[in-house]
Amino acid sequence: MTSAEHELHVCDAAVTLAFSVLGKRWNGMIVSAIGSGASTFGALRRAVPGISDAVLSERLAGLAEVGLVVRTVTPGPPTAVAYALSDSGERLLPILGQLGQWAAGNLS
Amino acid sequence: MTSAEHELHVCDAAVTLAFSVLGKRWNGMIVSAIGSGASTFGALRRAVPGISDAVLSERLAGLAEVGLVVRTVTPGPPTAVAYALSDSGERLLPILGQLGQWAAGNLS
Repeated sequence: MTSAEHELHVCDAAVTLAFSVLGKRWNGMIVSAIGSGASTFGALRRAVPGISDAVLSERLAGLAEVGLVVRTVTPGPPTAVAYALSDSGERLLPILGQLGQWAAGNLS
Repeated sequence: MTSAEHELHVCDAAVTLAFSVLGKRWNGMIVSAIGSGASTFGALRRAVPGISDAVLSERLAGLAEVGLVVRTVTPGPPTAVAYALSDSGERLLPILGQLGQWAAGNLS
């Protein structure tokens, strides 16, 4: 493997890693919505039109597992569950913003 | 809808639009690989490990349809088919690079 091929491989591996999370349908929108202030399950369901409760629930669990989303339970009654971005989730936000700007200007 | 809610909605719509393309498995890697110099079907197949010929073919057609990839056929014999990024595809590359850097630093 030449040095250029190695660099290509490393670069693609990182992009592949990014899409192991973001390539799953809805995940980008969910992170974006939490970053925009949606912090409850109901608010997220409204912010991500078309997602089902079961899939939203599964995606939130997955995003928590990879450390992008933090789930906080406040014992009640009534019990309150809130979702927030972790530091790594926060670091992803401006990149999602750029992706959105790119899409708005380049896709139709 | 308040102004903040409207802004949230517009922002999320753009991110949703971005993931209508990038949320499809492999698409981000394919754009990244073409940007890194893979220009033939065979080179792309090697650059995107695990993708099947049928899916790579389908994804390249889809990326051409939304205008990110340009397919050029040079009549032969032998006929040569080459893939390149369009201007909008080129504009996506640095954002994919940032996503890769983010993933390398924040996912494991």
